[in-house]
Amino acid sequence: MSLLVLKFGGTSVADIDRIRNVAAHVKREADAGHAIAVVVSAMAGHTNQLVAFVEQAWGFKERKNNGGEASAYYDGREYDTVVSSGEQVTSGLLALVLQSIGIKARSWQGWQIPLQTDAAHRSARITGLAVDELKSRMLDGEVAVVAGFQGLAPGNRISTLGRGGSDTSAVALAAALSADRCDIYTDVDGVYTTDPRVVPKAHRLDKISYEEMLEMASQGAKVLQTRSVELAMQKGVRVLVRSSFDPPDLAGKGNALGTLVCHEDEIMEQNVVSGIAYARDEAKVTLLKVADKPGVAAKVFGPLAAANINVDMIVQNVSEDGRFTDMTFTVQSADLDRALEVLRNAKNQIGYFDLRGSTDIAKVSVIGVGMRSHAGVAAQMFSALAEKGINIEAISTSEIKISVLIDAAYAELAVRTLHTLFGLDSR
Amino acid sequence: MSLLVLKFGGTSVADIDRIRNVAAHVKREADAGHAIAVVVSAMAGHTNQLVAFVEQAWGFKERKNNGGEASAYYDGREYDTVVSSGEQVTSGLLALVLQSIGIKARSWQGWQIPLQTDAAHRSARITGLAVDELKSRMLDGEVAVVAGFQGLAPGNRISTLGRGGSDTSAVALAAALSADRCDIYTDVDGVYTTDPRVVPKAHRLDKISYEEMLEMASQGAKVLQTRSVELAMQKGVRVLVRSSFDPPDLAGKGNALGTLVCHEDEIMEQNVVSGIAYARDEAKVTLLKVADKPGVAAKVFGPLAAANINVDMIVQNVSEDGRFTDMTFTVQSADLDRALEVLRNAKNQIGYFDLRGSTDIAKVSVIGVGMRSHAGVAAQMFSALAEKGINIEAISTSEIKISVLIDAAYAELAVRTLHTLFGLDSR
Repeated sequence: MSLLVLKFGGTSVADIDRIRNVAAHVKREADAGHAIAVVVSAMAGHTNQLVAFVEQAWGFKERKNNGGEASAYYDGREYDTVVSSGEQVTSGLLALVLQSIGIKARSWQGWQIPLQTDAAHRSARITGLAVDELKSRMLDGEVAVVAGFQGLAPGNRISTLGRGGSDTSAVALAAALSADRCDIYTDVDGVYTTDPRVVPKAHRLDKISYEEMLEMASQGAKVLQTRSVELAMQKGVRVLVRSSFDPPDLAGKGNALGTLVCHEDEIMEQNVVSGIAYARDEAKVTLLKVADKPGVAAKVFGPLAAANINVDMIVQNVSEDGRFTDMTFTVQSADLDRALEVLRNAKNQIGYFDLRGSTDIAKVSVIGVGMRSHAGVAAQMFSALAEKGINIEAISTSEIKISVLIDAAYAELAVRTLHTLFGLDSR
Repeated sequence: MSLLVLKFGGTSVADIDRIRNVAAHVKREADAGHAIAVVVSAMAGHTNQLVAFVEQAWGFKERKNNGGEASAYYDGREYDTVVSSGEQVTSGLLALVLQSIGIKARSWQGWQIPLQTDAAHRSARITGLAVDELKSRMLDGEVAVVAGFQGLAPGNRISTLGRGGSDTSAVALAAALSADRCDIYTDVDGVYTTDPRVVPKAHRLDKISYEEMLEMASQGAKVLQTRSVELAMQKGVRVLVRSSFDPPDLAGKGNALGTLVCHEDEIMEQNVVSGIAYARDEAKVTLLKVADKPGVAAKVFGPLAAANINVDMIVQNVSEDGRFTDMTFTVQSADLDRALEVLRNAKNQIGYFDLRGSTDIAKVSVIGVGMRSHAGVAAQMFSALAEKGINIEAISTSEIKISVLIDAAYAELAVRTLHTLFGLDSR
């Protein structure tokens, strides 16, 4: 007998027929003799509806149109009370469906477990998880159906873990239960070497290391929430990403049907590069002729941080005469207008000749733990892109990742080129 | 300063605009310096949607079509988990709307107060209500927005109080808080002498006694849930029924705008008859030639009780020869087919000649605490109906009520006749 946590996202529980399909997956594992906890999201679209209610209630648009900082005054405790109700509904419904096919089951809300969090409502962090009663009932053959995304904050209030937080609920539960595996059922059947819509030859990875998955997630692959991968890595939870749309009667053992996210020691045959990620949601900001002297970077990035704008890649050109330099960095596209405004307002303090912003860029990243032991990956990458006439506007690297900023028009070409270069095309 | 509980039903919180209207009512009372708790139902239609989900999840129809007792196996704890989410949503939304207009407010779920109940899920009874923290915050100027209908059952599970249970939540809260009044805002502006759609001359009562309201509620007037009236009577909670559709800026003091349900001592000018109720949702069952001997009633009503069918009026004719009698009684129309089946199956044990069922009946009731001290009300009633050629098929009485069963075709005529007879037509 294994102890398994299964997590199903919004599209997997979108209506009662889909919930019946979830129950069939649970039944397969229960019939195999496993002790099971299931973590569910809200029905697809339900959370958006609830968020819209909250914004209407608060008069979000009216306040924003009047120039106010609408969200700042929002009571996160009430937001969480309203929005967490979506998971409450699916947890009760799945428990009933399981009972209707003869499987013992009960629903658990965050406050009933309790899954305790800090007071950072709307994106709370888990501080404790008491699973004694839940686990003993699971071992007794009762399926624990846990409402994802929600917890209990100080003061006995409902909290939520931020969008996509059900992944984090599932991984945290798996860690607290010392589960053998955490199966994340989603609408794709695993983690691919790159987006199959861009590269038809992309293939599903049988296994991927935590570190690589973390880079893939933060570089644009949306299959798992970044925080849940961090937590899995920290707690050593083996996560299997698989599709809820696979027929439930297929044998679901091991990772035959999905991608296992695990410690790199578990991965026997490791490619140098595991995947190519790309993102189009960044924008480039260039400051021309900034004074090339100590403290100027603080003058640029201080006001941006104060305005809550995250900066990703930063490049500072070598100055020709030692007096002025050009500085380029990227922000989320959604933040571009605000970033330009902040920098315009700080022009006198910073001192620069001109300011430019552009959204016509893409970031392409090559990811693989094999890079640690293989030199020359960057050189291979740069020359392959150069051969195709693709200009690199900025570079950033980590131990297991190389990202380049390029003209958006060349994004697909770059991804395909690198996918082939590093031997990822399926045979 | 008074301590007030205000309760708003589903149509009063049907969308965000209606919730804003509720907030305006709350603001009027807050501006007057009162300490306020608001009890809210789910948005109109929301509870029905959730119940439909539960029935789909359980495969209610399929089971029923297969001849199963679908509801018997239902897990009430999961039903309550799903269905209580509607009130959770409205409580959070109203708290946000109140905050958006500058009123301190927080939502309270049943488990947070806690409002404790027994384990009779789906129609639990309140067993305890701890209001210390809630009350001290109210007296501090924070509006308590309480999710109605829901409570905390043994085992830390969510319970609900049955359909219309938010009225009961409000009255119980008012009792626990020793509130000065419990204002029930609904879609009508008070309790009428009878249904104004039947008798245009019906008028709103300024006051009505608990006993009368109880009879009105159980005889078909749908303005308040029967259990909430019982509780108000038992605890001495003064209940004001008024309309949430009245402009919120009207002075809302006293009972100028609604009907006060209170102890009869508070009612100075008491009519003999306060109101005429009627119900069309009963059906008549007649057993012809039942043996007229001890124990036969038990044989008839025992199997019906076992099938959970409530019997209302019962008439047993005097037998002519001392051997056989005819027995007539009423059940809810929805239960008629089941009742007939139960009696057909028990024919051998009971022993009767024939069995008849009919839904073409109406029950008309005359209600008033003044009957206690005024003789002759029944006689007046019967002769007035006889004058109009209306045949009485059965009679039942209590200290403050006389009900007659008549042909449904004459229901409106009977109500109008009695309304005039007892001086209730508005001048």
